[in-house]
Amino acid sequence: MGKEISQAVIRRMPRYYRYLGELLDEGVERISSNELSEKMKVTASQIRQDLNNFGGFGQQGYGYNVQYLYDEIGKILGLEEQHNIIVIGAGNLGQALANYGKFEKLGFMIIGLFDINPDLMGRSQRGIPIMMLEELEEFVISHKIDIAALTMPKGSADTIANQLVKLGIHAIWNFAHVDLDLMDKNVVVENVHLSDSLMQLSYNMMRNEAD
Amino acid sequence: MGKEISQAVIRRMPRYYRYLGELLDEGVERISSNELSEKMKVTASQIRQDLNNFGGFGQQGYGYNVQYLYDEIGKILGLEEQHNIIVIGAGNLGQALANYGKFEKLGFMIIGLFDINPDLMGRSQRGIPIMMLEELEEFVISHKIDIAALTMPKGSADTIANQLVKLGIHAIWNFAHVDLDLMDKNVVVENVHLSDSLMQLSYNMMRNEAD
Repeated sequence: MGKEISQAVIRRMPRYYRYLGELLDEGVERISSNELSEKMKVTASQIRQDLNNFGGFGQQGYGYNVQYLYDEIGKILGLEEQHNIIVIGAGNLGQALANYGKFEKLGFMIIGLFDINPDLMGRSQRGIPIMMLEELEEFVISHKIDIAALTMPKGSADTIANQLVKLGIHAIWNFAHVDLDLMDKNVVVENVHLSDSLMQLSYNMMRNEAD
Repeated sequence: MGKEISQAVIRRMPRYYRYLGELLDEGVERISSNELSEKMKVTASQIRQDLNNFGGFGQQGYGYNVQYLYDEIGKILGLEEQHNIIVIGAGNLGQALANYGKFEKLGFMIIGLFDINPDLMGRSQRGIPIMMLEELEEFVISHKIDIAALTMPKGSADTIANQLVKLGIHAIWNFAHVDLDLMDKNVVVENVHLSDSLMQLSYNMMRNEAD
Protein backbone atom coordinates (compact mmCIF):
# COMPACT_ATOMS: atom_id res chain seq x y z
CA MET A 1 0.00 0.00 0.00
CA GLY A 2 3.02 2.36 -0.14
CA LYS A 3 3.71 4.97 2.52
CA GLU A 4 1.76 5.35 5.74
CA ILE A 5 -1.10 7.82 5.43
CA SER A 6 -2.21 9.61 8.59
CA GLN A 7 -5.57 8.74 10.16
CA ALA A 8 -6.44 12.45 9.95
CA VAL A 9 -6.31 12.21 6.15
CA ILE A 10 -8.23 8.92 6.20
CA ARG A 11 -10.91 10.48 8.37
CA ARG A 12 -11.46 13.14 5.71
CA MET A 13 -11.74 10.73 2.75
CA PRO A 14 -15.30 9.52 3.47
CA ARG A 15 -16.34 13.15 3.56
CA TYR A 16 -14.85 13.76 0.10
CA TYR A 17 -16.63 10.64 -1.10
CA ARG A 18 -19.93 11.87 0.34
CA TYR A 19 -19.63 15.30 -1.30
CA LEU A 20 -18.57 13.86 -4.64
CA GLY A 21 -21.57 11.50 -4.49
CA GLU A 22 -23.85 14.49 -3.97
CA LEU A 23 -22.24 16.31 -6.91
CA LEU A 24 -22.83 13.25 -9.09
CA ASP A 25 -26.48 13.19 -8.00
CA GLU A 26 -26.69 16.84 -9.08
CA GLY A 27 -25.19 15.97 -12.48
CA VAL A 28 -21.91 17.86 -11.93
CA GLU A 29 -19.16 16.37 -14.12
CA ARG A 30 -16.17 18.53 -13.31
CA ILE A 31 -15.20 20.65 -10.32
CA SER A 32 -12.20 22.82 -9.49
CA SER A 33 -10.47 22.44 -6.15
CA ASN A 34 -11.62 25.99 -5.37
CA GLU A 35 -15.28 25.14 -5.93
CA LEU A 36 -14.92 21.90 -3.97
CA SER A 37 -13.16 23.88 -1.26
CA GLU A 38 -16.03 26.34 -0.97
CA LYS A 39 -18.60 23.57 -0.84
CA MET A 40 -16.75 21.51 1.76
CA LYS A 41 -15.47 24.47 3.78
CA VAL A 42 -11.86 23.29 3.77
CA THR A 43 -9.05 25.10 1.96
CA ALA A 44 -8.25 24.19 -1.64
CA SER A 45 -4.69 23.54 -0.57
CA GLN A 46 -5.90 21.04 2.03
CA ILE A 47 -7.87 19.22 -0.66
CA ARG A 48 -4.88 19.10 -3.01
CA GLN A 49 -2.61 17.92 -0.21
CA ASP A 50 -5.03 15.22 0.91
CA LEU A 51 -5.53 13.87 -2.60
CA ASN A 52 -1.81 14.04 -3.37
CA ASN A 53 -1.34 11.36 -0.70
CA PHE A 54 -2.95 9.01 -3.20
CA GLY A 55 -1.29 10.40 -6.29
CA GLY A 56 -3.35 13.46 -7.15
CA PHE A 57 -6.20 12.88 -9.67
CA GLY A 58 -6.51 16.51 -10.80
CA GLN A 59 -5.11 18.26 -13.84
CA GLN A 60 -3.79 21.77 -13.31
CA GLY A 61 -6.37 24.22 -14.67
CA TYR A 62 -8.97 21.55 -15.49
CA GLY A 63 -10.10 20.62 -12.01
CA TYR A 64 -11.34 17.18 -11.07
CA ASN A 65 -13.48 14.78 -13.05
CA VAL A 66 -16.16 14.09 -10.44
CA GLN A 67 -17.00 10.52 -11.47
CA TYR A 68 -13.35 9.53 -11.75
CA LEU A 69 -12.43 11.07 -8.39
CA TYR A 70 -15.49 9.46 -6.79
CA ASP A 71 -14.54 6.04 -8.14
CA GLU A 72 -10.90 6.40 -7.15
CA ILE A 73 -11.72 7.46 -3.59
CA GLY A 74 -14.18 4.58 -3.47
CA LYS A 75 -11.34 2.21 -4.36
CA ILE A 76 -9.07 3.79 -1.74
CA LEU A 77 -11.78 3.20 0.85
CA GLY A 78 -12.26 -0.40 -0.28
CA LEU A 79 -15.81 0.22 -1.50
CA GLU A 80 -15.56 -1.66 -4.78
CA GLU A 81 -15.96 -4.89 -2.80
CA GLN A 82 -19.10 -5.93 -0.98
CA HIS A 83 -18.70 -6.22 2.79
CA ASN A 84 -20.99 -8.41 4.83
CA ILE A 85 -21.86 -7.30 8.34
CA ILE A 86 -23.46 -9.01 11.31
CA VAL A 87 -24.86 -7.01 14.20
CA ILE A 88 -24.64 -8.35 17.74
CA GLY A 89 -27.45 -6.78 19.74
CA ALA A 90 -30.85 -6.38 18.07
CA GLY A 91 -32.14 -3.62 20.34
CA ASN A 92 -33.05 -0.21 18.98
CA LEU A 93 -29.54 0.65 17.90
CA GLY A 94 -28.95 -2.68 16.15
CA GLN A 95 -32.30 -2.38 14.41
CA ALA A 96 -31.53 1.23 13.46
CA LEU A 97 -28.36 0.04 11.72
CA ALA A 98 -30.30 -2.72 9.94
CA ASN A 99 -32.87 -0.18 8.77
CA TYR A 100 -30.37 2.23 7.33
CA GLY A 101 -30.47 1.57 3.57
CA LYS A 102 -27.62 3.97 2.87
CA PHE A 103 -25.02 1.43 4.02
CA GLU A 104 -26.05 -0.96 1.23
CA LYS A 105 -25.45 1.70 -1.41
CA LEU A 106 -21.89 1.81 -0.12
CA GLY A 107 -21.59 -1.98 -0.40
CA PHE A 108 -22.05 -2.76 3.30
CA MET A 109 -24.72 -5.46 3.60
CA ILE A 110 -26.09 -6.32 7.03
CA ILE A 111 -27.01 -9.99 6.69
CA GLY A 112 -27.88 -10.99 10.24
CA LEU A 113 -28.73 -9.65 13.69
CA PHE A 114 -28.14 -11.58 16.91
CA ASP A 115 -29.60 -11.16 20.37
CA ILE A 116 -30.24 -13.06 23.59
CA ASN A 117 -33.82 -11.83 23.99
CA PRO A 118 -36.12 -14.79 23.15
CA ASP A 119 -38.94 -12.35 22.28
CA LEU A 120 -36.96 -11.41 19.17
CA MET A 121 -36.52 -15.03 18.02
CA GLY A 122 -37.75 -15.60 14.49
CA ARG A 123 -38.31 -11.90 13.84
CA SER A 124 -36.60 -9.85 11.18
CA GLN A 125 -35.84 -6.22 10.45
CA ARG A 126 -36.22 -5.06 6.85
CA GLY A 127 -35.92 -8.71 5.82
CA ILE A 128 -32.75 -9.26 7.84
CA PRO A 129 -33.22 -12.19 10.23
CA ILE A 130 -32.81 -11.79 13.98
CA MET A 131 -31.17 -14.91 15.38
CA MET A 132 -30.27 -16.09 18.85
CA LEU A 133 -26.71 -15.76 20.08
CA GLU A 134 -26.37 -19.57 20.23
CA GLU A 135 -26.68 -19.59 16.42
CA LEU A 136 -23.83 -17.09 15.96
CA GLU A 137 -20.97 -19.56 15.57
CA GLU A 138 -22.68 -21.66 12.93
CA PHE A 139 -23.78 -18.58 11.02
CA VAL A 140 -20.28 -17.09 10.99
CA ILE A 141 -18.75 -20.37 9.84
CA SER A 142 -21.25 -20.82 7.02
CA HIS A 143 -21.21 -17.21 5.71
CA LYS A 144 -18.54 -14.81 4.62
CA ILE A 145 -18.60 -12.13 7.32
CA ASP A 146 -16.27 -9.16 7.06
CA ILE A 147 -17.43 -6.93 9.89
CA ALA A 148 -19.18 -7.43 13.22
CA ALA A 149 -21.02 -4.46 14.69
CA LEU A 150 -21.35 -4.62 18.48
CA THR A 151 -24.47 -2.88 19.76
CA MET A 152 -25.00 -4.90 22.93
CA PRO A 153 -24.31 -3.77 26.52
CA LYS A 154 -20.67 -3.27 27.40
CA GLY A 155 -20.55 -6.08 29.97
CA SER A 156 -20.45 -8.82 27.34
CA ALA A 157 -18.57 -6.88 24.65
CA ASP A 158 -15.06 -8.25 25.31
CA THR A 159 -16.20 -11.88 25.48
CA ILE A 160 -18.21 -11.71 22.28
CA ALA A 161 -15.58 -9.67 20.45
CA ASN A 162 -12.91 -12.25 21.27
CA GLN A 163 -15.24 -15.07 20.22
CA LEU A 164 -15.83 -13.34 16.87
CA VAL A 165 -12.12 -12.82 16.36
CA LYS A 166 -11.51 -16.52 17.04
CA LEU A 167 -14.10 -17.29 14.38
CA GLY A 168 -12.03 -15.27 11.91
CA ILE A 169 -13.66 -11.83 11.94
CA HIS A 170 -10.97 -9.17 11.83
CA ALA A 171 -12.97 -5.96 11.77
CA ILE A 172 -15.20 -4.71 14.56
CA TRP A 173 -17.49 -1.71 14.52
CA ASN A 174 -17.86 -1.09 18.23
CA PHE A 175 -20.81 0.82 19.68
CA ALA A 176 -20.48 -0.73 23.15
CA HIS A 177 -19.48 1.87 25.70
CA VAL A 178 -16.04 0.38 26.34
CA ASP A 179 -12.66 0.12 24.63
CA LEU A 180 -12.37 -3.53 23.64
CA ASP A 181 -9.65 -5.66 25.15
CA LEU A 182 -8.80 -8.08 22.34
CA MET A 183 -6.42 -11.00 22.62
CA ASP A 184 -5.54 -10.88 18.92
CA LYS A 185 -4.05 -7.47 18.13
CA ASN A 186 -4.39 -7.97 14.38
CA VAL A 187 -7.97 -6.74 14.41
CA VAL A 188 -9.27 -3.43 13.13
CA VAL A 189 -11.64 -1.68 15.52
CA GLU A 190 -13.66 1.42 14.76
CA ASN A 191 -15.33 2.87 17.84
CA VAL A 192 -18.53 4.88 17.92
CA HIS A 193 -18.67 6.06 21.52
CA LEU A 194 -21.85 8.11 21.70
CA SER A 195 -21.29 9.32 25.27
CA ASP A 196 -17.83 10.56 24.36
CA SER A 197 -19.33 12.48 21.45
CA LEU A 198 -21.96 14.02 23.73
CA MET A 199 -19.32 15.06 26.28
CA GLN A 200 -17.28 16.68 23.53
CA LEU A 201 -20.39 18.60 22.46
CA SER A 202 -20.92 19.67 26.07
CA TYR A 203 -17.34 20.96 26.33
CA ASN A 204 -17.65 22.92 23.10
CA MET A 205 -21.01 24.39 24.20
CA MET A 206 -19.47 25.66 27.39
CA ARG A 207 -16.52 27.17 25.56
CA ASN A 208 -18.87 28.76 23.05
CA GLU A 209 -20.89 30.40 25.83
CA ALA A 210 -17.72 31.68 27.50
CA ASP A 211 -16.34 33.32 24.34
CA MET B 1 -11.54 29.99 29.34
CA GLY B 2 -7.81 30.78 29.00
CA LYS B 3 -5.73 29.46 26.14
CA GLU B 4 -7.13 27.51 23.23
CA ILE B 5 -6.97 23.76 23.80
CA SER B 6 -6.77 21.57 20.73
CA GLN B 7 -9.75 19.43 19.71
CA ALA B 8 -7.43 16.41 19.80
CA VAL B 9 -6.96 16.92 23.54
CA ILE B 10 -10.69 17.55 24.01
CA ARG B 11 -11.47 14.33 22.15
CA ARG B 12 -9.40 12.39 24.67
CA MET B 13 -10.97 13.93 27.80
CA PRO B 14 -14.24 11.91 27.69
CA ARG B 15 -12.11 8.78 27.51
CA TYR B 16 -10.21 9.78 30.66
CA TYR B 17 -13.54 10.48 32.31
CA ARG B 18 -14.86 7.07 31.30
CA TYR B 19 -11.80 5.22 32.64
CA LEU B 20 -11.76 7.19 35.89
CA GLY B 21 -15.45 6.38 36.35
CA GLU B 22 -14.65 2.68 35.95
CA LEU B 23 -11.81 2.97 38.49
CA LEU B 24 -14.22 4.61 40.95
CA ASP B 25 -16.69 1.77 40.41
CA GLU B 26 -13.87 -0.63 41.25
CA GLY B 27 -13.10 1.31 44.43
CA VAL B 28 -9.69 2.58 43.28
CA GLU B 29 -8.81 5.79 45.16
CA ARG B 30 -5.40 6.68 43.79
CA ILE B 31 -3.59 5.86 40.55
CA SER B 32 -0.18 6.73 39.14
CA SER B 33 0.13 8.07 35.61
CA ASN B 34 2.02 4.86 34.76
CA GLU B 35 -0.84 2.64 35.91
CA LEU B 36 -3.39 4.83 34.15
CA SER B 37 -1.17 4.75 31.08
CA GLU B 38 -1.11 0.94 31.04
CA LYS B 39 -4.86 0.72 31.49
CA MET B 40 -5.66 3.26 28.79
CA LYS B 41 -2.90 2.24 26.40
CA VAL B 42 -1.54 5.75 25.95
CA THR B 43 1.85 6.90 27.21
CA ALA B 44 2.18 8.34 30.70
CA SER B 45 3.76 11.42 29.18
CA GLN B 46 0.68 11.91 26.95
CA ILE B 47 -1.55 11.73 30.02
CA ARG B 48 0.57 14.26 31.91
CA GLN B 49 0.66 16.58 28.90
CA ASP B 50 -3.09 16.36 28.34
CA LEU B 51 -3.92 17.07 31.96
CA ASN B 52 -1.37 19.87 32.17
CA ASN B 53 -3.52 21.76 29.66
CA PHE B 54 -5.96 22.19 32.51
CA GLY B 55 -3.42 22.79 35.23
CA GLY B 56 -2.22 19.34 36.19
CA PHE B 57 -4.07 17.64 39.11
CA GLY B 58 -1.29 15.19 40.03
CA GLN B 59 1.40 15.35 42.70
CA GLN B 60 4.84 14.11 41.76
CA GLY B 61 5.27 10.67 43.33
CA TYR B 62 1.72 10.42 44.67
CA GLY B 63 -0.21 9.90 41.47
CA TYR B 64 -3.75 11.10 40.96
CA ASN B 65 -6.64 11.10 43.38
CA VAL B 66 -9.22 9.31 41.23
CA GLN B 67 -12.35 10.99 42.62
CA TYR B 68 -10.78 14.45 42.44
CA LEU B 69 -9.53 13.95 38.89
CA TYR B 70 -12.91 12.51 37.84
CA ASP B 71 -14.75 15.50 39.28
CA GLU B 72 -12.34 18.00 37.75
CA ILE B 73 -12.55 16.46 34.29
CA GLY B 74 -16.33 16.39 34.71
CA LYS B 75 -16.24 20.14 35.35
CA ILE B 76 -14.00 20.71 32.34
CA LEU B 77 -16.53 18.81 30.21
CA GLY B 78 -19.43 20.82 31.63
CA LEU B 79 -20.98 17.78 33.31
CA GLU B 80 -21.80 19.38 36.65
CA GLU B 81 -24.81 20.99 34.97
CA GLN B 82 -27.84 19.11 33.67
CA HIS B 83 -28.36 19.35 29.91
CA ASN B 84 -31.77 18.84 28.39
CA ILE B 85 -31.97 17.22 24.98
CA ILE B 86 -34.72 16.87 22.40
CA VAL B 87 -34.46 14.32 19.61
CA ILE B 88 -35.87 15.11 16.18
CA GLY B 89 -36.71 11.80 14.51
CA ALA B 90 -38.28 9.06 16.63
CA GLY B 91 -37.29 6.16 14.39
CA ASN B 92 -35.04 3.36 15.63
CA LEU B 93 -32.04 5.60 16.12
CA GLY B 94 -33.97 8.29 17.99
CA GLN B 95 -35.58 5.63 20.17
CA ALA B 96 -32.20 4.00 20.76
CA LEU B 97 -30.87 7.33 22.10
CA ALA B 98 -33.94 7.71 24.33
CA ASN B 99 -33.41 4.19 25.68
CA TYR B 100 -29.81 4.69 26.59
CA GLY B 101 -29.84 5.28 30.37
CA LYS B 102 -26.11 6.01 30.48
CA PHE B 103 -26.62 9.54 29.11
CA GLU B 104 -28.68 10.47 32.18
CA LYS B 105 -25.90 9.41 34.52
CA LEU B 106 -23.76 11.99 32.73
CA GLY B 107 -26.44 14.65 33.21
CA PHE B 108 -27.87 14.53 29.68
CA MET B 109 -31.66 14.19 29.95
CA ILE B 110 -33.66 13.45 26.83
CA ILE B 111 -37.00 15.09 27.54
CA GLY B 112 -38.83 14.81 24.23
CA LEU B 113 -38.83 13.06 20.86
CA PHE B 114 -40.41 14.52 17.73
CA ASP B 115 -41.51 12.88 14.49
CA ILE B 116 -43.84 13.38 11.55
CA ASN B 117 -45.19 9.80 11.60
CA PRO B 118 -48.76 9.99 12.97
CA ASP B 119 -48.53 6.32 14.07
CA LEU B 120 -46.13 7.47 16.78
CA MET B 121 -48.44 10.18 18.10
CA GLY B 122 -49.16 9.85 21.82
CA ARG B 123 -46.56 7.12 22.29
CA SER B 124 -43.54 7.31 24.52
CA GLN B 125 -40.16 5.65 24.88
CA ARG B 126 -39.00 4.88 28.43
CA GLY B 127 -41.45 7.52 29.64
CA ILE B 128 -40.20 10.15 27.20
CA PRO B 129 -43.08 11.49 25.11
CA ILE B 130 -43.06 11.27 21.32
CA MET B 131 -44.65 14.41 19.90
CA MET B 132 -45.48 15.61 16.43
CA LEU B 133 -43.19 18.06 14.66
CA GLU B 134 -45.94 20.73 14.74
CA GLU B 135 -45.59 20.76 18.53
CA LEU B 136 -41.84 21.41 18.40
CA GLU B 137 -41.89 25.20 18.55
CA GLU B 138 -44.19 25.41 21.55
CA PHE B 139 -42.21 22.74 23.38
CA VAL B 140 -38.90 24.48 22.80
CA ILE B 141 -40.29 27.82 23.93
CA SER B 142 -41.79 26.37 27.10
CA HIS B 143 -38.81 24.20 28.14
CA LYS B 144 -35.13 24.81 28.69
CA ILE B 145 -33.51 22.88 25.83
CA ASP B 146 -29.73 22.79 25.55
CA ILE B 147 -29.15 20.29 22.77
CA ALA B 148 -31.11 19.02 19.77
CA ALA B 149 -30.19 15.61 18.38
CA LEU B 150 -31.07 15.20 14.70
CA THR B 151 -31.87 11.60 13.77
CA MET B 152 -34.21 12.26 10.86
CA PRO B 153 -33.44 11.81 7.14
CA LYS B 154 -30.91 14.24 5.71
CA GLY B 155 -33.39 15.94 3.35
CA SER B 156 -35.04 17.94 6.12
CA ALA B 157 -31.98 18.34 8.37
CA ASP B 158 -30.94 21.86 7.30
CA THR B 159 -34.46 23.28 7.54
CA ILE B 160 -35.12 21.86 10.98
CA ALA B 161 -31.65 22.71 12.26
CA ASN B 162 -32.08 26.35 11.23
CA GLN B 163 -35.54 26.42 12.80
CA LEU B 164 -34.10 25.09 16.07
CA VAL B 165 -31.32 27.66 16.02
CA LYS B 166 -33.86 30.45 15.51
CA LEU B 167 -35.70 29.12 18.56
CA GLY B 168 -32.50 29.60 20.56
CA ILE B 169 -30.87 26.15 20.53
CA HIS B 170 -27.14 26.54 20.08
CA ALA B 171 -25.91 22.97 20.20
CA ILE B 172 -26.74 20.25 17.68
CA TRP B 173 -25.85 16.58 17.86
CA ASN B 174 -26.16 15.65 14.22
CA PHE B 175 -26.74 12.06 13.08
CA ALA B 176 -28.22 13.07 9.71
CA HIS B 177 -25.95 11.99 6.88
CA VAL B 178 -25.05 15.54 5.83
CA ASP B 179 -22.91 18.43 7.05
CA LEU B 180 -25.39 21.04 8.22
CA ASP B 181 -25.56 24.39 6.49
CA LEU B 182 -26.48 26.78 9.30
CA MET B 183 -27.27 30.45 8.87
CA ASP B 184 -26.09 31.30 12.39
CA LYS B 185 -22.44 30.32 12.72
CA ASN B 186 -22.47 30.65 16.51
CA VAL B 187 -23.77 27.11 16.91
CA VAL B 188 -21.84 24.10 18.14
CA VAL B 189 -22.33 21.00 16.02
CA GLU B 190 -21.09 17.52 16.85
CA ASN B 191 -21.48 15.11 13.96
CA VAL B 192 -21.93 11.36 14.21
CA HIS B 193 -21.63 10.26 10.59
CA LEU B 194 -22.07 6.49 10.75
CA SER B 195 -21.31 5.91 7.07
CA ASP B 196 -18.07 7.85 7.37
CA SER B 197 -17.11 5.68 10.31
CA LEU B 198 -17.89 2.52 8.33
CA MET B 199 -15.82 3.71 5.37
CA GLN B 200 -12.90 4.43 7.67
CA LEU B 201 -13.21 0.91 9.05
CA SER B 202 -13.24 -0.44 5.49
CA TYR B 203 -10.07 1.47 4.63
CA ASN B 204 -8.28 0.21 7.74
CA MET B 205 -9.42 -3.38 7.02
CA MET B 206 -7.94 -3.22 3.56
CA ARG B 207 -4.67 -1.78 4.83
CA ASN B 208 -4.55 -4.42 7.54
CA GLU B 209 -4.95 -7.22 4.99
CA ALA B 210 -2.23 -5.70 2.80
CA ASP B 211 0.34 -5.51 5.62
